[in-house]
Amino acid sequence: MPVAEPAILEKLQKREPSGFLLASVRGVGQVDLQPLIWTGLFILAALWSAGWRVGLFATLGTVVSTATAYALGVNRSNIALGLQGYCGCLTGIALVVFLGHHPATYVLAVVGAIMATLLTATLTTLLSPYGLTALTAPFCLVSGVMVIGAPSFERIWHGAPKQVNPTSGDTGMSWHDLWHGFFTNVSQIFLVEEWYVGLIMLVGLACAGVRVGLFAAGGSVVGIVAAWALGAPTAQIAAGIYGYNAVLVAIAIGAVFLTPTVWNGVYALVGAAATTGLTASLTSLFKPFGGHTFTWPFILTTWTLMAAVPLFSRLRRTG
Amino acid sequence: MPVAEPAILEKLQKREPSGFLLASVRGVGQVDLQPLIWTGLFILAALWSAGWRVGLFATLGTVVSTATAYALGVNRSNIALGLQGYCGCLTGIALVVFLGHHPATYVLAVVGAIMATLLTATLTTLLSPYGLTALTAPFCLVSGVMVIGAPSFERIWHGAPKQVNPTSGDTGMSWHDLWHGFFTNVSQIFLVEEWYVGLIMLVGLACAGVRVGLFAAGGSVVGIVAAWALGAPTAQIAAGIYGYNAVLVAIAIGAVFLTPTVWNGVYALVGAAATTGLTASLTSLFKPFGGHTFTWPFILTTWTLMAAVPLFSRLRRTG
Amino acid sequence: MPVAEPAILEKLQKREPSGFLLASVRGVGQVDLQPLIWTGLFILAALWSAGWRVGLFATLGTVVSTATAYALGVNRSNIALGLQGYCGCLTGIALVVFLGHHPATYVLAVVGAIMATLLTATLTTLLSPYGLTALTAPFCLVSGVMVIGAPSFERIWHGAPKQVNPTSGDTGMSWHDLWHGFFTNVSQIFLVEEWYVGLIMLVGLACAGVRVGLFAAGGSVVGIVAAWALGAPTAQIAAGIYGYNAVLVAIAIGAVFLTPTVWNGVYALVGAAATTGLTASLTSLFKPFGGHTFTWPFILTTWTLMAAVPLFSRLRRTG
Repeated sequence: MPVAEPAILEKLQKREPSGFLLASVRGVGQVDLQPLIWTGLFILAALWSAGWRVGLFATLGTVVSTATAYALGVNRSNIALGLQGYCGCLTGIALVVFLGHHPATYVLAVVGAIMATLLTATLTTLLSPYGLTALTAPFCLVSGVMVIGAPSFERIWHGAPKQVNPTSGDTGMSWHDLWHGFFTNVSQIFLVEEWYVGLIMLVGLACAGVRVGLFAAGGSVVGIVAAWALGAPTAQIAAGIYGYNAVLVAIAIGAVFLTPTVWNGVYALVGAAATTGLTASLTSLFKPFGGHTFTWPFILTTWTLMAAVPLFSRLRRTG
Repeated sequence: MPVAEPAILEKLQKREPSGFLLASVRGVGQVDLQPLIWTGLFILAALWSAGWRVGLFATLGTVVSTATAYALGVNRSNIALGLQGYCGCLTGIALVVFLGHHPATYVLAVVGAIMATLLTATLTTLLSPYGLTALTAPFCLVSGVMVIGAPSFERIWHGAPKQVNPTSGDTGMSWHDLWHGFFTNVSQIFLVEEWYVGLIMLVGLACAGVRVGLFAAGGSVVGIVAAWALGAPTAQIAAGIYGYNAVLVAIAIGAVFLTPTVWNGVYALVGAAATTGLTASLTSLFKPFGGHTFTWPFILTTWTLMAAVPLFSRLRRTG
Repeated sequence: MPVAEPAILEKLQKREPSGFLLASVRGVGQVDLQPLIWTGLFILAALWSAGWRVGLFATLGTVVSTATAYALGVNRSNIALGLQGYCGCLTGIALVVFLGHHPATYVLAVVGAIMATLLTATLTTLLSPYGLTALTAPFCLVSGVMVIGAPSFERIWHGAPKQVNPTSGDTGMSWHDLWHGFFTNVSQIFLVEEWYVGLIMLVGLACAGVRVGLFAAGGSVVGIVAAWALGAPTAQIAAGIYGYNAVLVAIAIGAVFLTPTVWNGVYALVGAAATTGLTASLTSLFKPFGGHTFTWPFILTTWTLMAAVPLFSRLRRTG
């Protein structure tokens, strides 16, 4: 780790700009639940490599979210950990992807990033009695509201951008589909469908520790196997549509929230498989009103499984 | 205030009918979060001026809700504040507006007002760990369930009444649209689209204090500006469709739940702008199954912003 | 009661297979909130009498759910009461009814039963601050997710089975409709539309005590009367579509969660009537995305009414 956590916190408290920048870089990594600076840097590089628009909106969202939290007086050590930036990062990307690249989208990205910080505080209050965290739910709520509402407003809606993801197809699986899906499962967390972006991100995750890297890779494999076993269209599996939630669930439950035991590991991978099925249900659920699945399957699966843990004496939370 | 609060409570405890009536009048004012008797009287007069059906159903709903709470043994000081009547008031109006004026609607209004009192108790229990209140959610739930379910039942469904609100149009804004919208934003809280009804209500709100009056007016202005900036159809802005939630949010956060500081005031007006956008999203969300937006945008925005407050050291709750 | 509760718990702790089997039988009875072994046996017999598929999937689901709870280390006395089996029971039945009898459905029933146990733990954690229990919500969530998601997957979707329930018709009521509805209201809890199945189950419920039997019968009558008064199609009333939630609400509130007083009894029957109306609303709500109503009306009504109880001094919870 290039900069120790106390150092970032100290810089932030002294109002040094570098503290704010380092907290923002961490924010990018926190999308994958990793506070390591290197992980944030790799992921940020991957996002810019996916195109300057994605990189710019991700950066804009992260910085605005973090600055909003700073201005409103959120706990400094929480900001230093990057926990106030990751939802803005995803919100920025989602808005440019689903509303298109227009001047109004910049304004909405700023507003969305501010709202993401508000909702992070809301969910922190609502979930804390249960020992749960907000995960990426603030992003899903803000982006969902904006994308559903946008077509009602003339000044911000310029027609739907071209469909990013395939929606049907046959179920035969080639080697090419397989390794593509393995990497796009990681990049699709950020709404990007490029195998090399996923590869760079996976390197960043591996920097955060062997366990993080292994569970990220394991989640991706489980996501592919579960989607194939259920009979999902291959084009969607190869595009990472069915696996990005599995990657997040595997990291969150397998490498962050539970202690490293065999039972806990199996629990994380069962969750990764379950979230793959849930992805299809939520997509059908959201279709009638033009909603998007975003990372809801990850969020709902992780909340469900983590809230269940205290009743299962076989499993144990960290910390 | 013509009658002091302790006096109403005392009358209620002595089972004097006047105590019950005064509590009911207060209930009408509590739709706008104001316990002042004068505010309740002005709003009640405004509702009867909108038509005897609206006035009658509002009165019926408020009285039945308050009486139900009394019979079930709800805390007397809570009843005396009018907190058991406002959801029945809105439920009565919503049912006659959306189901039409038929004998069955009277029965449903009574049942709906009873249910509104039950749901007020339910939400009070569920929200109290978070320091939140039920707001108008019991009304939205009861009316939503009844309006969605009604078409399945032959004896209570007589076809949809004529559409009350315009649903499309251009986005140019005239002076006439502007001042109409300013007042209908206030009357539309009660599902009434008449500028003079809003005017009378605004006078009642001003009686409750300068701060209440200013935030009500400010919320209405912010609602119009935000809707115009987003590009909403002018006919809807002039009808108050996009602004009534902004008025409620501004009153609730600006004049009731937070202390009077500049940061808190800005927070309230940002919330008023946000709820305007949320109105479009919820309308799209409810469309597939015939639901209605009611005051959900106000409720969700206020819960979200109030639950977030404890994490922001810049902001402070009252009490 | 053929076997005392402590005996089952003791057998379970000693790892005797008979303890596990008795806990599973109890699980079947717990669908109707009854821990009595005889009630479980009667209901199990009724399910097998409805057809070997229904019987087999109900048994499979109950056993897998109970075994999952056992393996994950759930509190033994909770398992001994049958509280870990009832959601698996209903999930098994729902999957064979809505996905059809295929090899894949067996796999899904096992997965669904495991998930039902996880969700039971989740909801127990989330609801315990409010003194509420999970009821059949884990079943509704798991089955809902699977039924909504299934059509997206080629290997588990073989087309929708023939529609089980009538969806329209006139509102005249014959004696034949009336007594059919009375019994199918009880069997429809288990998604079975056969009067004799309901009759056997009612005998089982009567074994659990006079009060349980009376409230089950009373709930069924209230469900029929309320549906008729609202003007629901007779064919649906006769099929039990409008009354099974009323039976569950009447048992839960009238005979299990509240003390036996007149006010409490009226409260339970008002709830039974309300849940009948709610059934139509939720059916309309779920229609756009292919969801199913299952026992959601019962769950939502019971949670709502039980959470309201602490604020009503007229009513009192048991225990």
